[in-house]
Amino acid sequence: MYRTHNNNTLNINHVNKSVKLSGWVQKIRDKGFIIWIDLRDRYGVTQLVIDAERSNKQLVEQARTLGREFVIQVEGKVIERESKNTHINTGEIEVLVEKLNILNTSKTPPFTIENKTDGGEDLRLKYRYLDIRRQAVKDKLIFRSKVSMAVRNYLTQQDFIDVETPYLIKSTPEGARDFVVPSRMNTNQFYALPQSPQTFKQLLMVGGLDKYFQIVKCFRDEDLRADRQPEFTQIDCEMTFVEQEDVLQTFEGLTKHLLKEINGVSIEDFPRMTYDEAMRTYGNDKPDIRFGIKFGELNEVAQHKEFSIFNQAELVVGIAIPDGASYSRKEIDKLIDWVKRPQVGAKGMVYVKCNEDGSFKSSVDKFYDQDDLKKWAEITGAKPGDLIAVLSGKTNETRAQLSALRMEMAERLGLRNPNEFAPLWVVDFPLLEWDEETERFHAMHHPFTSPKLEDLNLLETDPGKVRANAYDLVLNGNEIGGGSIRIHDRHMQEKMFAFLGFTEEEAKAQFGFLMDAFQYGAPPHGGIAFGLDRLVAILGGQESIRDFIAFPKNNSGRDIMIDAPAKISEEQLKELHLSLIKKS
Amino acid sequence: MYRTHNNNTLNINHVNKSVKLSGWVQKIRDKGFIIWIDLRDRYGVTQLVIDAERSNKQLVEQARTLGREFVIQVEGKVIERESKNTHINTGEIEVLVEKLNILNTSKTPPFTIENKTDGGEDLRLKYRYLDIRRQAVKDKLIFRSKVSMAVRNYLTQQDFIDVETPYLIKSTPEGARDFVVPSRMNTNQFYALPQSPQTFKQLLMVGGLDKYFQIVKCFRDEDLRADRQPEFTQIDCEMTFVEQEDVLQTFEGLTKHLLKEINGVSIEDFPRMTYDEAMRTYGNDKPDIRFGIKFGELNEVAQHKEFSIFNQAELVVGIAIPDGASYSRKEIDKLIDWVKRPQVGAKGMVYVKCNEDGSFKSSVDKFYDQDDLKKWAEITGAKPGDLIAVLSGKTNETRAQLSALRMEMAERLGLRNPNEFAPLWVVDFPLLEWDEETERFHAMHHPFTSPKLEDLNLLETDPGKVRANAYDLVLNGNEIGGGSIRIHDRHMQEKMFAFLGFTEEEAKAQFGFLMDAFQYGAPPHGGIAFGLDRLVAILGGQESIRDFIAFPKNNSGRDIMIDAPAKISEEQLKELHLSLIKKS
Repeated sequence: MYRTHNNNTLNINHVNKSVKLSGWVQKIRDKGFIIWIDLRDRYGVTQLVIDAERSNKQLVEQARTLGREFVIQVEGKVIERESKNTHINTGEIEVLVEKLNILNTSKTPPFTIENKTDGGEDLRLKYRYLDIRRQAVKDKLIFRSKVSMAVRNYLTQQDFIDVETPYLIKSTPEGARDFVVPSRMNTNQFYALPQSPQTFKQLLMVGGLDKYFQIVKCFRDEDLRADRQPEFTQIDCEMTFVEQEDVLQTFEGLTKHLLKEINGVSIEDFPRMTYDEAMRTYGNDKPDIRFGIKFGELNEVAQHKEFSIFNQAELVVGIAIPDGASYSRKEIDKLIDWVKRPQVGAKGMVYVKCNEDGSFKSSVDKFYDQDDLKKWAEITGAKPGDLIAVLSGKTNETRAQLSALRMEMAERLGLRNPNEFAPLWVVDFPLLEWDEETERFHAMHHPFTSPKLEDLNLLETDPGKVRANAYDLVLNGNEIGGGSIRIHDRHMQEKMFAFLGFTEEEAKAQFGFLMDAFQYGAPPHGGIAFGLDRLVAILGGQESIRDFIAFPKNNSGRDIMIDAPAKISEEQLKELHLSLIKKS
Repeated sequence: MYRTHNNNTLNINHVNKSVKLSGWVQKIRDKGFIIWIDLRDRYGVTQLVIDAERSNKQLVEQARTLGREFVIQVEGKVIERESKNTHINTGEIEVLVEKLNILNTSKTPPFTIENKTDGGEDLRLKYRYLDIRRQAVKDKLIFRSKVSMAVRNYLTQQDFIDVETPYLIKSTPEGARDFVVPSRMNTNQFYALPQSPQTFKQLLMVGGLDKYFQIVKCFRDEDLRADRQPEFTQIDCEMTFVEQEDVLQTFEGLTKHLLKEINGVSIEDFPRMTYDEAMRTYGNDKPDIRFGIKFGELNEVAQHKEFSIFNQAELVVGIAIPDGASYSRKEIDKLIDWVKRPQVGAKGMVYVKCNEDGSFKSSVDKFYDQDDLKKWAEITGAKPGDLIAVLSGKTNETRAQLSALRMEMAERLGLRNPNEFAPLWVVDFPLLEWDEETERFHAMHHPFTSPKLEDLNLLETDPGKVRANAYDLVLNGNEIGGGSIRIHDRHMQEKMFAFLGFTEEEAKAQFGFLMDAFQYGAPPHGGIAFGLDRLVAILGGQESIRDFIAFPKNNSGRDIMIDAPAKISEEQLKELHLSLIKKS
């Protein structure tokens, strides 16, 4: 047996007890006559002591051969410490070592294994197993495990069944790019890895399983943006005989349970907002509502004056930045530069200082008088001392730009408290969105999403206006879940595929099995999928998902620890009937 | 809202209550003046009634349009039934329908959706969603979910952390064939899907996570034998600072928990047997010990007589078949034919009838007298009334043949009771096994398994004799789990790779990251992996794993429901820099 206790267990009640401990050498303090060693394992740290007086000479010599990250096993007696450390569980005792067994040595690690490390991103990824040894990273993985289990417990108690759907499925052209897997037994044919188990969970509902969930890996071969991974984890759920309200209630329940169980936070019923309102009020379909700074649309009061830039704009919209009136000219110029950065893309910014005395000073005083600006202040909710920032241009772009400014200001003003949680349902998403590139409508959610019955007549006349039975759960400005009530009628599904530009043959080849299934008594059903990586990061109060993934890939989709992807052998290629085309 | 109750809930206490129910039409009995409908959902069946007297005419007509598997919603009142059915929870009531809403129609299903179906294997796979609607299949999926959750609960309580390891990893030549995934972003390079998370879980131990588990899909591109799937599920576990005994105790605990929780069976400490003893006593490293019929080795008593077949054999070995002495000549001939089938492969069979009067009658009376045969009976444990069956030849082959006969006889004699559970640890597996084809030693478990220290000196002189710290958990004649204490020393691991025929470069290219990791304080560690598909099937008292998998593939690795694998587009191939070689 390697240990009688872990390194977080021993306390003053164990004094005089003989114990066996194992772990890593975290730190050694050699004072000549006495040597202290901090012994670390997953659970904590225990102080070991070896001294010239009480320990035999050989043991002292052996201890002097130890280095950081050596793996050791010791036997000894628990004794009371002289100088106690009240910050850790084992801080009142130390173990006087009687026997030391070196289980493994260690080279000097490439970075320090402490909460604050000197290791850069790449180095930490390459030696991920050492990075994980750091408490800060280890705790995130343990946190993730806890969240997963809380999800499972809640859903199981609600009668959901955990069903594993297949990973080797069929490639479909809809949506993002698939990873494919050549089949050896079926020459020149390929499996695809699932982007989500969407069709399978729908088939489980046709199969009468009623309530399904799965925590499942999904795959997308996309050019990676920062903080995106080619493989990611979804909490995938589906229910039968439900309307949108049933789904919202169920997963609001799950989210409340997680916030309570994991964060100790009780939240009342989640607010709801239509997609239209979210876009109008926050310029964004996943607004962070931990703070206000709402949009005020100024077209009516700012247009039809002499200011041609506003007159030509589709949208004139502003926000009130709290306490911004005190910004210096230089600070405001920097803000204008910020919104003009390519990542934001505004052409310029009009501003109004709302002075404490109720007067206004703006960058467009030439065109607008104090009464005009007073109206702006009313609409944006600006108070004396605030700065109104106004952007203008095409509606969608301008909203995105002002939303970016809103988030930036909130960040600077410290309004994005990671320990505050503000969930929000965004509902009534459009069914379709226009794609400029292909000049066609695409499914905004996916082609299985049902349109609102009352909007059906718009499908021919004004497709962009058709709303879907689709909903997103937003938490602190992040979409953590999204779903819809699905189409369960074969004819409606055929119509939808046709509308999205599928020929009858294409629809049949790709999704024939689903439309077949709809002929044999498909029940009404709907569901939701949560992004677990993101959810865990937000519950953990973090922005980046990477540390919550045990072995993440870098931005080129590489695992730099194991050096994958890599070349495969000629023999493997031959067996798969594949040949490589060299990059030209 | 689609329903106020599910179809297993209503009973005599609900009489006079107005309810809303949804489900599938299981059966319709139209007696002219009265129509009964069995309404089914996941939970159960409720009887609906519509009659000419109490219901309006329109409703009766509407009910007459229903067919099997139609999806309906009804509103009505709970009333007491005249003829009660005590077999189901809802058997005392029926619901007098007031309103009927047809949610979806159904074509006539291709097979009957009842516990006993008329659907053949292929038809059931093609319409798997209808097969799942059958109670018998649905129950197996629910059972699986329950087992998974019981596993998670137990391991979580034991401080194991659920960590997700990556699915896109690197191909290694060791072991079975990998499925590979071409990378688009890294031209001409490939990921591989994991055959198991072996190296990652070891790295988690180097990372100090101490106790890891994961229920995870694994992939092997092998020519499929019956009841093998290209993707399968593993309960994967690893622990740090453990010896073999610690691992055995922990997972014996898990298995006991499952048997208690799932099957209501309490089992005492599991017996243990060395690999050698298992092979000697049962001819098999996963013996079914629900019954005896142990091997008796007869070399000493049967050789050195006049019978040349035995004299030339490496092994002469027999079993006592209970009550077999009464077999007719014809029955015995059939048994001899059975062992001579190509699947078994014996050249012949010698038999001894142990008569009730204590005398013996054998097929080799010419060579052996009554005293000789009495010794055979003693060694095989044959009692008066039994039949001794004796095979001979090369050791390994003969053991396999007699083991097949032992299992066959147990099956015929009804000794393999699916509701009886006989777990067994098989320990002390050989480290290496000789491969005739490549004329080399291969790792019996995998190259990360540690040899027993006391056998290390044999590695140079008699490698086949070196025992490993490896163990299997056997349940009812099936290996349900296997694992080992791993190598954690870099030099030992290098030595092992060299012994297995890796060049230094190959070892570094494939497993350099692991050997690097071993330089930075790798702790002693070991673990186990259970095959979840098989485990669930056995706990469910079944032989076949297929019904416990939601969407299984057929023996050619095809999903015949979605028709995968399939061709992919030219554009996809182009993006991946791949071209197909046509099968010649």
